[in-house]
Amino acid sequence: MAELVKVVVDAMGGDNAPVEPVKAAVEAVKERKDILVFLTGQRPVIEKELARYEGYSKKRIQIVEASEVIETAEPPVNAIRKKKDSSIVVGLNLVKKQEADAFVSSGSTGAVLVGGQVLVGRSKGVERPPLAPLIPTLKGVSLLVDCGANVDARPSHLVQFAKMGSIYMENVLGVKNPKVAIVNNGAEEEKGNALVKATFPLLKECKGINFIGSIEARDIPEGLADVIVCEAFVGNVILKLYEGVGGALVRKIKAGMMTSLRSKIGALLVKPALKATLKDFDASEYGGAPLLGLKGLVVKTHGSAKAVEIKHAIFQCVQFKHQRINEKIAEHILEQEKQE
Amino acid sequence: MAELVKVVVDAMGGDNAPVEPVKAAVEAVKERKDILVFLTGQRPVIEKELARYEGYSKKRIQIVEASEVIETAEPPVNAIRKKKDSSIVVGLNLVKKQEADAFVSSGSTGAVLVGGQVLVGRSKGVERPPLAPLIPTLKGVSLLVDCGANVDARPSHLVQFAKMGSIYMENVLGVKNPKVAIVNNGAEEEKGNALVKATFPLLKECKGINFIGSIEARDIPEGLADVIVCEAFVGNVILKLYEGVGGALVRKIKAGMMTSLRSKIGALLVKPALKATLKDFDASEYGGAPLLGLKGLVVKTHGSAKAVEIKHAIFQCVQFKHQRINEKIAEHILEQEKQE
Repeated sequence: MAELVKVVVDAMGGDNAPVEPVKAAVEAVKERKDILVFLTGQRPVIEKELARYEGYSKKRIQIVEASEVIETAEPPVNAIRKKKDSSIVVGLNLVKKQEADAFVSSGSTGAVLVGGQVLVGRSKGVERPPLAPLIPTLKGVSLLVDCGANVDARPSHLVQFAKMGSIYMENVLGVKNPKVAIVNNGAEEEKGNALVKATFPLLKECKGINFIGSIEARDIPEGLADVIVCEAFVGNVILKLYEGVGGALVRKIKAGMMTSLRSKIGALLVKPALKATLKDFDASEYGGAPLLGLKGLVVKTHGSAKAVEIKHAIFQCVQFKHQRINEKIAEHILEQEKQE
Repeated sequence: MAELVKVVVDAMGGDNAPVEPVKAAVEAVKERKDILVFLTGQRPVIEKELARYEGYSKKRIQIVEASEVIETAEPPVNAIRKKKDSSIVVGLNLVKKQEADAFVSSGSTGAVLVGGQVLVGRSKGVERPPLAPLIPTLKGVSLLVDCGANVDARPSHLVQFAKMGSIYMENVLGVKNPKVAIVNNGAEEEKGNALVKATFPLLKECKGINFIGSIEARDIPEGLADVIVCEAFVGNVILKLYEGVGGALVRKIKAGMMTSLRSKIGALLVKPALKATLKDFDASEYGGAPLLGLKGLVVKTHGSAKAVEIKHAIFQCVQFKHQRINEKIAEHILEQEKQE
């Protein structure tokens, strides 16, 4: 039997905790035999949730007590420093001590990002670990790096994002020679703000990535690039607007279909097909966003994540571990440093 | 009879020139008696197009010869400087000389922005004239300032954007006490990049605007604010992603409806309702984007604009003129300067 991949799941994080994270853990160990889940959080709460399920391997779900909970609104740096017995800090420490391979949380993005960097730590040479969610496109998915909390990036950060993103897409998603593009306000090389203008020539020269130039926001949903590089403020706008425009349009369409008897009948007939289509294009469907370039794996799932999404994030951790992504990133960054 | 509002339409600008701009001019003067249109461009080309129409007032459409055409790919500063006899330069000069009230073009955004600033000129006190398109929301429309070509803005620019945007929404769209928000990567006051952090307190203190704080990109389509303030790089991403996600989703939905016989029949029934709904949520449907804070009115319509959109932009110019927007902006900015 293959070695167990050990994934910590934050049982107290997110809008649907503890119900959905606990359900995700149960489903994950039921579906795959090579996973062990640590649930961090308040033991009585978790035990009560677990009692609702049966037929799963009790050996492969273990509770690790953490009495405190970090709330979404808390200033992250403070929260990580003060709440040493929170589900996030306890979980990240398991990864730090190499007792677990990965940590998955739907809790405070800021706390997960800060905690990941401070507790698990950056790989040697990595300047800034980016948060890299997958976003749906007409061709499949693209990786958007960075959507993290550290804004005002430098050009060298963006070059590392391009490298780490390429390794991820090639090894986890199986995209051969992934196309890398930088978000810009025009397709021409002379376009851009100061950061993009300074980064563009560095990406052009950068070995080991397949840089295709600028991408305008309009073309992101077309899937013209596999790795979309931008600084975190812009990445945040892209990720959230994807969600916002998609959600608003779907509501608008649903309301539009209720305007006449004719369209109401039509709506009944198209409903199943429409539902499947929209699910395909829902950014929150694509599991979690990894924090790349750390010594262990940290994955942030959406605050409103359901069990199915958290389960996918757990499976993603297995792939990540088997493909040795962190090792590959570390090797790549070190190699680059030697060349310079 | 009310005084004629004189609008220059660039007959050579955009993907659909000269067909759509000329058609727009004809329809505009047919529908309203208070408009005179100057068409700038190559006389034979325009005359040939005009020959296709009848029943319009030939007095209220006048051709102003301009032999050159500025292409979209040309570097804007160069184009404006060198092509003195282009439809854009000739048109903007009519506004400069106060022979016309407004200029509407679907041509090169860069050239229109540069030309507007250089030829028509900024109102006294305006630091940077922003391009401010209307974007559709679930509640109606919001004004997105700035989507122009001048990136890397300063906090004082953003404060002026907020003021000018408020005046526009109040007077042109009739929104009482318009809500102003700044695009941010979180709802909390401590969030933001360096620019947003520096701008936030200035907006809070700013008199005469109804500042409601940060807006996350997710909430823009909800219509939570009437005036959305951001620097141009971010504005460009928002505007183009709106278009991109909307377009991709619609194509995906149409394809999804063709997957089974059941859904195909349903699609036929919902088609009319769906079409009306999607039109409502199409960013390119909302006429043109004014360049605010100039001594005359300059409106940029979408490169792929059809006659109906250009016609709306012409009507928008009439409203803009009647409401004395430029005068109000100039007064407001000067008043503010006196207070400081």
